[in-house]
Amino acid sequence: MRIDLNSDLGESFGAWTMGQDEALMDSITSANIACGFHAGDPGVMRQTLALAKDKGVAVGAHPGFPDLVGFGRREMKATPAEVHDLVLYQVAALAGMAAAQGLRLQHVKAHGALYNMACKERSLADAIARAVAAFDRSLILFGLPNSELVRAGAAAGLTVAAEVFADRAYERDGSLTSRNKPGSVIHDEDAVVERAVRMVKQRDVVAVDGSVIALQADTICLHGDTPGAAALARVVRRGLESAGVVIAALRT
Amino acid sequence: MRIDLNSDLGESFGAWTMGQDEALMDSITSANIACGFHAGDPGVMRQTLALAKDKGVAVGAHPGFPDLVGFGRREMKATPAEVHDLVLYQVAALAGMAAAQGLRLQHVKAHGALYNMACKERSLADAIARAVAAFDRSLILFGLPNSELVRAGAAAGLTVAAEVFADRAYERDGSLTSRNKPGSVIHDEDAVVERAVRMVKQRDVVAVDGSVIALQADTICLHGDTPGAAALARVVRRGLESAGVVIAALRT
Amino acid sequence: MRIDLNSDLGESFGAWTMGQDEALMDSITSANIACGFHAGDPGVMRQTLALAKDKGVAVGAHPGFPDLVGFGRREMKATPAEVHDLVLYQVAALAGMAAAQGLRLQHVKAHGALYNMACKERSLADAIARAVAAFDRSLILFGLPNSELVRAGAAAGLTVAAEVFADRAYERDGSLTSRNKPGSVIHDEDAVVERAVRMVKQRDVVAVDGSVIALQADTICLHGDTPGAAALARVVRRGLESAGVVIAALRT
Amino acid sequence: MRIDLNSDLGESFGAWTMGQDEALMDSITSANIACGFHAGDPGVMRQTLALAKDKGVAVGAHPGFPDLVGFGRREMKATPAEVHDLVLYQVAALAGMAAAQGLRLQHVKAHGALYNMACKERSLADAIARAVAAFDRSLILFGLPNSELVRAGAAAGLTVAAEVFADRAYERDGSLTSRNKPGSVIHDEDAVVERAVRMVKQRDVVAVDGSVIALQADTICLHGDTPGAAALARVVRRGLESAGVVIAALRT
Repeated sequence: MRIDLNSDLGESFGAWTMGQDEALMDSITSANIACGFHAGDPGVMRQTLALAKDKGVAVGAHPGFPDLVGFGRREMKATPAEVHDLVLYQVAALAGMAAAQGLRLQHVKAHGALYNMACKERSLADAIARAVAAFDRSLILFGLPNSELVRAGAAAGLTVAAEVFADRAYERDGSLTSRNKPGSVIHDEDAVVERAVRMVKQRDVVAVDGSVIALQADTICLHGDTPGAAALARVVRRGLESAGVVIAALRT
Repeated sequence: MRIDLNSDLGESFGAWTMGQDEALMDSITSANIACGFHAGDPGVMRQTLALAKDKGVAVGAHPGFPDLVGFGRREMKATPAEVHDLVLYQVAALAGMAAAQGLRLQHVKAHGALYNMACKERSLADAIARAVAAFDRSLILFGLPNSELVRAGAAAGLTVAAEVFADRAYERDGSLTSRNKPGSVIHDEDAVVERAVRMVKQRDVVAVDGSVIALQADTICLHGDTPGAAALARVVRRGLESAGVVIAALRT
Repeated sequence: MRIDLNSDLGESFGAWTMGQDEALMDSITSANIACGFHAGDPGVMRQTLALAKDKGVAVGAHPGFPDLVGFGRREMKATPAEVHDLVLYQVAALAGMAAAQGLRLQHVKAHGALYNMACKERSLADAIARAVAAFDRSLILFGLPNSELVRAGAAAGLTVAAEVFADRAYERDGSLTSRNKPGSVIHDEDAVVERAVRMVKQRDVVAVDGSVIALQADTICLHGDTPGAAALARVVRRGLESAGVVIAALRT
Repeated sequence: MRIDLNSDLGESFGAWTMGQDEALMDSITSANIACGFHAGDPGVMRQTLALAKDKGVAVGAHPGFPDLVGFGRREMKATPAEVHDLVLYQVAALAGMAAAQGLRLQHVKAHGALYNMACKERSLADAIARAVAAFDRSLILFGLPNSELVRAGAAAGLTVAAEVFADRAYERDGSLTSRNKPGSVIHDEDAVVERAVRMVKQRDVVAVDGSVIALQADTICLHGDTPGAAALARVVRRGLESAGVVIAALRT
């Protein structure tokens, strides 16, 4: 039994800092690095890649909508062609900066609104998957289990990784409970650890209505921008290790 | 006797179009493609690459300062580290988009104020040369003859190409006459052709003071954003061919 | 019988030009000037205001989504608070630049996706109307006839102006025929003039299904970014004048 | 004896926060609010204005170069016309947002590289002063004592305010010691208070070479982006009050 732990990093921009990248790198195995459209800038990208290299964390691109002020969290009605091009551009930029440091990208995880939209809309999912495949067929594409995004990735010939969230509530249908609803984010550390272990070992999760739903889990996302992010990541990692789970990047 | 003809292309942005890319592609052998910081966007970049592929024109990156509204023409006091990172980012982005179409970049030519500053300031020249070399040591770096930029490129282990301008006046010291001075741009087609031929065959040019100065010429830049740009490019190409000069990309 | 003729102007950006502002200014009575978020920059804004002043054309703000590369034409899921703030910012910026030239804004017309969304979603319409009213209660708010936007404007205590399009097909319910459908844009000059005259004099239009629908028309929008834009504007203006219609800005 | 205390505020952007605006507002009398080009966004601007209104702090515009990633700290070779327009745009935007809350701007202080360049280059200083005067002749223009900026402001008919820094070393000629030199920033709280009191009461300061130089001081700048910024501001304010200095905005 093994699992990958991923987190969104490199989200500082110019004079503005965000996240606890260095501390998180001690717990995670895969870093999703912002590529300059919703966060990150060339300097931040270089530094985040260097940090990941130093810590032995696998690196991936985290492309988002061109919306700095909205942090890529606002849905934009971009065409599939526009999405294809902006994903290809961002993945290529990060991959080249990684190569300059002797690193090879492991994966691609779309950010924010782009991720959420692509999990539901096949045309956007295809646009992302084709952009990634056109650039490098060996990249692993992240997506919610059973989403259009993982289906599009598979159809494009990519290896896909089903991403789960140990600190988020799930609906009976396997979707994430909306952040607007009470209880959508689980703050109790023990509960988060317990859910993480169960997701990996039993491949299921208890939904908000109490039902148990099956859930494929290749990688667990640990949030990086909350106050106790680094501490929670450490606890989750230790909890998984104590339960006998091997923590390892997807491609090792 | 042979020469490369280059032009700055892909300088449209979103709904705004610029230049006569398609017509110019019939005359030139190397296209310097904007990378999104001073001009160009992911869609424009993809289309320009496709056009170059279709026309058999070699492609290169044309990275500039992050200054859309100023079109990269305004000097910015960026640090060498910032310049290194923004060049690496842009070159990588275009190279990856090119690779997705089966194309490999031939060269890198810095744009506007970045080019002019780097021709004079060694620290910026080194920053550009090192970024290019770190990404792909086989890329050819463009610069003015005898400039800090070509020296930095050579020092970084890169092949360099000395760029000349057939429609620009030269000072006795080999520098370009400032655009603010009368006569700095030569509009007479015959004179431009004559200068181009002389630059290639005799490796010299008549400066504004009438003196003849030696000038290394590996590639001639043909402007793309003036009204008669495509027509002038055709005339220059035909004039060179009539004089027995082979027109070919640098790496063929 | 009188009508206002408006057009979207000042949509150049930096080195990129767009539109036929000078020629259009001879035919229209109200200029909607881009405010820097989807098009326009401070220099373009100043020049467009100066041109309008010179031609005696009334000026208004044309605020859009912060999406240069998408020209403000892509829907963005911005919150009402975000829309309120970005409209207020843009209207204030243009109004202040106008005041520096001794001009006072006459109106506000939201641009592109923001306009279309606000015509349908009351929360966004309210956000725009409240921003405009908070800045200057004497400004006239443009919107489609019977839209949420004009209703929100009236509710906020603003004078509203119903905007119609003489060169666009209408559905039976009074909405504009989607641009994706054939026949949505009317290219025949005589037909456009005839529709314009009828909209003003009879206050109705023949819809795509042949039915005649009532339509309030306070201002007719003349497109500025198509090849024959200035010529069509002249023809429409002359046609209206020949039919005895007075062409005048809303506030004269 | 009285003095104004100012600080640069509203420098958050989108999801990125910066500074200790709320705490600083308790000590200062004038807030320089970023206008969206180097920092700040429409939402941040509205909130910062509301906070200033609540705390009774006078508000001013803090326009900068269009360089988010460089935070407006990098010199840009913009023309005087470009500087005029970008200052006018930003001042107008903030003034209009302030007016919507019933506030009137008190002053304008250029930011970062724009401020430093305009203190030395008269053409840029004139561009700023004329933009401010064209918008509202009652606005107070901030600048270093004896700088081209205050001279340009006076020439444009504006009231000017000489700005001093209690925590920065001064050269014998009255200029600020470069931040690159050791000792350029004074960290000892008592020393900072002592210098502030002396600047106000004796109108002079001890330069790095030990000489005493005269210095006009209408407003003291308190930095807002350092860790102990709010605490230092409190100490300086109390120190000045203990010395019998009245702390008040320039226009009260």
